Amino acid sequence: MPTLRIALAQDNPTVGDLDANAELIRRAATAASAAGAHLLATGEQALTGYPVEDLALRHSFVAASRARLERLAAELAADGNGALPVAVGYLDADGPVDDEAAGRRSDQSARGRGLRNALALIQDGKVLFRYYKHHLPNYGVFDEDRYYVPGHELHLARIGGVDVAFTVCEDLWQEGVPFTAAAAAGAGLVVNSNASPYEQGKHEDRIELLRHRAAALGAPIAYLNIVGGQDDLVFDGGSMVVGADGEVLAAARRFGTELLIADLDLAAAGEESDLPSGASAPMGITRHRVSETVPAPAEPLAPAAAPALSRHEEVWEALCLGLGDYARKNGFASVLLGLSGGIDSAVTAVLARDALGADAVWTVANPSRYSSRHSVDDAADLAERCGLHHLVEPIQPIVDAYLTQMSLSGLALENLQARVRGVIWMSLSNQHGHLVLAAGNKSEYSVGYSTLYGDSCGGFAPIKDVPKTLVYELATWRNEHAKRLGETEPIPESIILKPPSAELRPDQKDSDSLPEYAVLDPMLHAYVDGDAGREDLIAQGYDADLVMRIANLVDGAEYKRRQSAPGTKISRKSFGRDRRLPITNHFRGGA
Amino acid sequence: MPTLRIALAQDNPTVGDLDANAELIRRAATAASAAGAHLLATGEQALTGYPVEDLALRHSFVAASRARLERLAAELAADGNGALPVAVGYLDADGPVDDEAAGRRSDQSARGRGLRNALALIQDGKVLFRYYKHHLPNYGVFDEDRYYVPGHELHLARIGGVDVAFTVCEDLWQEGVPFTAAAAAGAGLVVNSNASPYEQGKHEDRIELLRHRAAALGAPIAYLNIVGGQDDLVFDGGSMVVGADGEVLAAARRFGTELLIADLDLAAAGEESDLPSGASAPMGITRHRVSETVPAPAEPLAPAAAPALSRHEEVWEALCLGLGDYARKNGFASVLLGLSGGIDSAVTAVLARDALGADAVWTVANPSRYSSRHSVDDAADLAERCGLHHLVEPIQPIVDAYLTQMSLSGLALENLQARVRGVIWMSLSNQHGHLVLAAGNKSEYSVGYSTLYGDSCGGFAPIKDVPKTLVYELATWRNEHAKRLGETEPIPESIILKPPSAELRPDQKDSDSLPEYAVLDPMLHAYVDGDAGREDLIAQGYDADLVMRIANLVDGAEYKRRQSAPGTKISRKSFGRDRRLPITNHFRGGA
Repeated sequence: MPTLRIALAQDNPTVGDLDANAELIRRAATAASAAGAHLLATGEQALTGYPVEDLALRHSFVAASRARLERLAAELAADGNGALPVAVGYLDADGPVDDEAAGRRSDQSARGRGLRNALALIQDGKVLFRYYKHHLPNYGVFDEDRYYVPGHELHLARIGGVDVAFTVCEDLWQEGVPFTAAAAAGAGLVVNSNASPYEQGKHEDRIELLRHRAAALGAPIAYLNIVGGQDDLVFDGGSMVVGADGEVLAAARRFGTELLIADLDLAAAGEESDLPSGASAPMGITRHRVSETVPAPAEPLAPAAAPALSRHEEVWEALCLGLGDYARKNGFASVLLGLSGGIDSAVTAVLARDALGADAVWTVANPSRYSSRHSVDDAADLAERCGLHHLVEPIQPIVDAYLTQMSLSGLALENLQARVRGVIWMSLSNQHGHLVLAAGNKSEYSVGYSTLYGDSCGGFAPIKDVPKTLVYELATWRNEHAKRLGETEPIPESIILKPPSAELRPDQKDSDSLPEYAVLDPMLHAYVDGDAGREDLIAQGYDADLVMRIANLVDGAEYKRRQSAPGTKISRKSFGRDRRLPITNHFRGGA
Repeated sequence: MPTLRIALAQDNPTVGDLDANAELIRRAATAASAAGAHLLATGEQALTGYPVEDLALRHSFVAASRARLERLAAELAADGNGALPVAVGYLDADGPVDDEAAGRRSDQSARGRGLRNALALIQDGKVLFRYYKHHLPNYGVFDEDRYYVPGHELHLARIGGVDVAFTVCEDLWQEGVPFTAAAAAGAGLVVNSNASPYEQGKHEDRIELLRHRAAALGAPIAYLNIVGGQDDLVFDGGSMVVGADGEVLAAARRFGTELLIADLDLAAAGEESDLPSGASAPMGITRHRVSETVPAPAEPLAPAAAPALSRHEEVWEALCLGLGDYARKNGFASVLLGLSGGIDSAVTAVLARDALGADAVWTVANPSRYSSRHSVDDAADLAERCGLHHLVEPIQPIVDAYLTQMSLSGLALENLQARVRGVIWMSLSNQHGHLVLAAGNKSEYSVGYSTLYGDSCGGFAPIKDVPKTLVYELATWRNEHAKRLGETEPIPESIILKPPSAELRPDQKDSDSLPEYAVLDPMLHAYVDGDAGREDLIAQGYDADLVMRIANLVDGAEYKRRQSAPGTKISRKSFGRDRRLPITNHFRGGA
């Protein structure tokens, strides 16, 4: 049984930064060569970043991706890493990109463009083959049918006498080809390159799926995922190799870059005459010869293992990476947020500190006549515990200036206060260059309990996909985590214990108009994340009036969500491209 | 040659309002029966509205659509219209909708759900057949691969001795089946039900396409489009019947509802034995018998003709309908907007007046110390000419209240003024229930020349997809139009003549930092609408520095556009779901 040393580059590419992404691949190749690896794989579209969305429709971008791949092949050879086969994910197209064709109205479909979600195997400065992703996800946050046409050819490269097949992301999730084709072709290893966004529970699903596929394949699968934040998405890494017996042979960490190197004992390729080649509907099979033997690794590697993360730690890491990468990749050195003394802004502030460092975080308290003394003190206490910059900008004189001119009452007056705060944050942002963070949670976004252009102001909303009950859990977890590390608990206990309130009128409490979050969040989870109908909720035992009221709030807040900042997806269904509902929508009922 | 009287219900359905939409179909059936029609067709998904987006993923909505169709069939019979065959567009699914299956991670694709974009032919209280749309558009604003699986069965109904085939929207735009199958099956008429969004020039494309398809078919095509606004989209109607010789045999008006009735001399169906039936890859053919003969229409109808619209009138009608329906369908009785004295807010105000009536329009002037006397007067003049409610709310005292507390300068100070205006508009909206309109144009949205949470505030942005040069043309056209009608020109000439300025600092002009709009707009059209690369623009002769500066502005403003209000699509590529670019995007160059 040949032993292959394979290297998986769990990198953090940036969408559109072809040179920087190519540089990451060159560095990984140099490190993999130095470590004696026989094969290096990179993530799905690691050269372009993922998802490139409508950049794919710009022929100049497609041309740049193709040209950069060719140049990368030459660079890898010039770096002295030409002997190492490197699988590089990128964006390709069939033939020259034809603007005229793409511009015809009847030919705007992906078929008309011939774009490919591609993985090229490079060696000795040349592209040996280009595999085109077969299964194109077009659900949830994915729109790949908008861009790509599926490939129908599986490629196997004989490396060190082992037939290695190459696949991309969704190819793993769907039954049938290309995995059945790889099995039929006698693959000794299947590489699966991913850009797989984080969701709670998804990593466990991946492991289970890999075990299932590897068993059916009768060979290990090298699962490679990118890492990093891209607008609403966080890619969580967690690359791993899973054997045919279900054992995780090697695992990279989550939420961080790593070059995962593993020694794998793999089945040698069979006799050429025994193996199918050519057409094998619905996929053809093409074989490539890289090397029949390779030197066995001099010193066997201990299997790489990744630390396990608790449920809350995993979410926290996802939120930190999503926020941190949004700020870094969009050129912000600092963030600013309003600290109300409530739990949402407290958790957001600590996340920002953990993601970017205390010196990068500016907090502002904006007390009004309805703010409790407690809230103002708690905000200052949190800022001090965390070492954050802290400002106090009272809003009453400004609110009064509006009221001198306009007669406002009720909701208009409540919203005015929130909007004056928003204007103050945006003014400080414009003056000093901070990225403003919106501190709303998923429960609020769901029912529309926020003021448009008020507390919803901001370029990024770190806890947008975190239900209120989970916000509390994260706060408690983060404090306990600090205690375990012997550090100061960042969040004052009174912030966790006080009843939630927007403090926009005297003695206001969230519970005045909403059920307890322990009741509300499961309802919202079913209605928003689960696409349940109102009847389903009533059938589950929820009070019918409550169901109608809450569902009406959710449906009626679509216009606010449409204008909201992006925030890190952590759930099965986040707001944004993951959940696309019309604003104009009269459906309120059942059958 | 049998003469069939066909009726096309060019209605304005509302997404999700199944009962109201069913009522429109019942009324059309009663009118069509009374007019002696032999067939009534409705638009694509006329029962559910279009597009339903992720409502399709709610099993309760799918079940409601299916149940409402069955009930509609019974209602049509009970109304005494049972004898009339009625083609009804709706949302269907294969078999019972299975929530469990839809919930599995590996089965979130359309294939796993089996949803159908369907057209049912109803007669005598029963569904005779259900045609499932074959070509699913998944480009531009369309996401139909996200929801639907394609149908592979063409249905022909023999009505009055004529074989009538039924198709849906995109089926017309793609070469091949189902139109080739309809031709092979000897169809004497093809009905094509649409929900086809307006774009400038698209109606002319439709006519050309219909001529081409009808000639290849050797029979007329009855093209039926819905009408009305739905968030970013406007459906422009313009239903028509085009003969095999290319003649437009009947045409309904654009941008308004109409029951188009036409007498068509159609080829009688051939001998049964001559005609193919059963499988005909990639589509099967199923035949249905409704009637071999029908009474000829007693009194022949004169062909219905629609008034031709000039280029500017067409756009104006589209914008009025988009704005009007957004307000009406979302329950707003009035709108409010800031009148700066500039061209954008002037055109937006007149649009609002034309769409909703003068009494529904509230305008506010918010002079600052940088506002010219001229601007304030022009705003008041326009409001008076148009009979609009007009308020004056100066912003300086409020701006000063902020400045008492914070030291702001440059852009931060400019933005502050715009944001104080935004807060005033939103406060008036909250207090009085007006829908706030954002008055930005496409050129501004492109380069990001607006203040987030300032002048960009609003629930709807009527001219969001209108380039500045076209805004001027529309203003001129609208004034001339008024003159032709002997009415007061709504827009003061000085508003059209003055150089554009945001008036946020002394003597500011748009031309201080942007090229003339006559230069800018074609560049933006190529870069934004045409997906041209920077190199392409330079190759076209634009100054390289200017190209890089403008393209950087466009790329850098994605975060603002992501938080902007919806606005009516009139161009090939509008901002929003039509153009999906990442915020985090480092691509700035070429190959």
